[in-house]
Amino acid sequence: MREKLTVIKVGGKIVEEEETLCKLLDDFAAIEGYKVLVHGGGRSATKVAALLGIESKMVNGRRITDAETLKVVTMVYGGLVNKNIVAGLQARGVNALGLTGADMDVIRSVKRPVKEIDYGFVGDVKQVNGDFLGSLIRKGVVPVMAPLTHDGEGHMLNTNADTIAGETAKALSGQFDVTLVYCFEKKGVLRDENDDESVIPQITPEEFKQYVAEGVIQGGMIPKLENSFEALNAGVMEVVITLASAINSAGGTRIIK
Amino acid sequence: MREKLTVIKVGGKIVEEEETLCKLLDDFAAIEGYKVLVHGGGRSATKVAALLGIESKMVNGRRITDAETLKVVTMVYGGLVNKNIVAGLQARGVNALGLTGADMDVIRSVKRPVKEIDYGFVGDVKQVNGDFLGSLIRKGVVPVMAPLTHDGEGHMLNTNADTIAGETAKALSGQFDVTLVYCFEKKGVLRDENDDESVIPQITPEEFKQYVAEGVIQGGMIPKLENSFEALNAGVMEVVITLASAINSAGGTRIIK
Repeated sequence: MREKLTVIKVGGKIVEEEETLCKLLDDFAAIEGYKVLVHGGGRSATKVAALLGIESKMVNGRRITDAETLKVVTMVYGGLVNKNIVAGLQARGVNALGLTGADMDVIRSVKRPVKEIDYGFVGDVKQVNGDFLGSLIRKGVVPVMAPLTHDGEGHMLNTNADTIAGETAKALSGQFDVTLVYCFEKKGVLRDENDDESVIPQITPEEFKQYVAEGVIQGGMIPKLENSFEALNAGVMEVVITLASAINSAGGTRIIK
Repeated sequence: MREKLTVIKVGGKIVEEEETLCKLLDDFAAIEGYKVLVHGGGRSATKVAALLGIESKMVNGRRITDAETLKVVTMVYGGLVNKNIVAGLQARGVNALGLTGADMDVIRSVKRPVKEIDYGFVGDVKQVNGDFLGSLIRKGVVPVMAPLTHDGEGHMLNTNADTIAGETAKALSGQFDVTLVYCFEKKGVLRDENDDESVIPQITPEEFKQYVAEGVIQGGMIPKLENSFEALNAGVMEVVITLASAINSAGGTRIIK
């Protein structure tokens, strides 16, 4: 039997506020077995950019990353947010290692081609060095991954944290039984967006199509679920969408094949 | 015979300007054998702090690090400067890994006790995890160390880059024949501060005392040399003070026991 590994993705809001961060770090430290934390940091990036006089431009929820914005996200994601999490986990006895894709070449990406929109210095993941990550993890190291990659030619690239989590989970699924957990601001995928208790406990590909056709699942949840099914097809055992505060409970929505 | 390892410390100015950074990365990539890069970033920190409306207060060349300043140095040293170096080295085929002291608990420090001056969130190095660093280095990983440590209780601490370099060199001297290179804005320790060519090729402890007594060596060079002798006494094979552009040549000042 293979060993279990949990990849947890948490958004910016949770890791950027002292109180929710502390709770998250406690909960993450309590997860048994091998684990990886992938974090965002968009709100802090927007805040720091504003203080530096740089306007944050978003298209479809994605940040347009010009040269100055790339400096901001490199500082905020790779420095401020990442190192606070790492120091906080170390204090809880978790041997955290902060990583961007450039570190040990763990995630290489290509600058997104310009089509209708020029996203700037944004990277689409090309390759995750799962072997190297896996060997570190087996030594007890807990990777804490910032949403940044590199192109192998000396440039950092801003990369969506959900994508980093999904690609990392896939790359590690050859070595571990991987559970991928997307933390969310709701208890899970809701049947009725006005009822926080209407969590759909599990979703199969057929049910997903049905829910989309009915308009039950819409907007940003559609790519999240598409990514989840893609991860399952690539070998990930289980994908869970749940509250960050519930990562150690059985709640949330389970995406299954 | 033990294997050689070179620890290079470069100040902020060199790593903060595109042109000097490129040259440094080329030179660093060309160093044979095991190696570690320790960098500063003070000028960028001062610049970012100013843009954020935070005044930089320095005492004896050391930054007074209040809570807001700690955020700035964590962003700038741990994010911006560190990741640019890491991505640049990866592009040169060097398997760089950016580290602060918090990452894998490699350098733990204690917040400097308040005496005449309250330096704020500044750490004095307590312990370097040389075994872990050494095992990574033997795997071909090249640590790129930011001047940041942690206290093991969840706090990052601003830490002098010369100190990080010296303590890291000492911690690795049990496993490797370590050469510690302090890059400097002059060709070495000068006999006459107005003559850039008056490099003193080597300095013994006795000569050091003599030079200090004569006023030839003064100011910030005194603690640098004191640290050098301390490193030699702790097992480091050789300490060199030289130009960053000369790290692959035989120039500079050699500090010997």
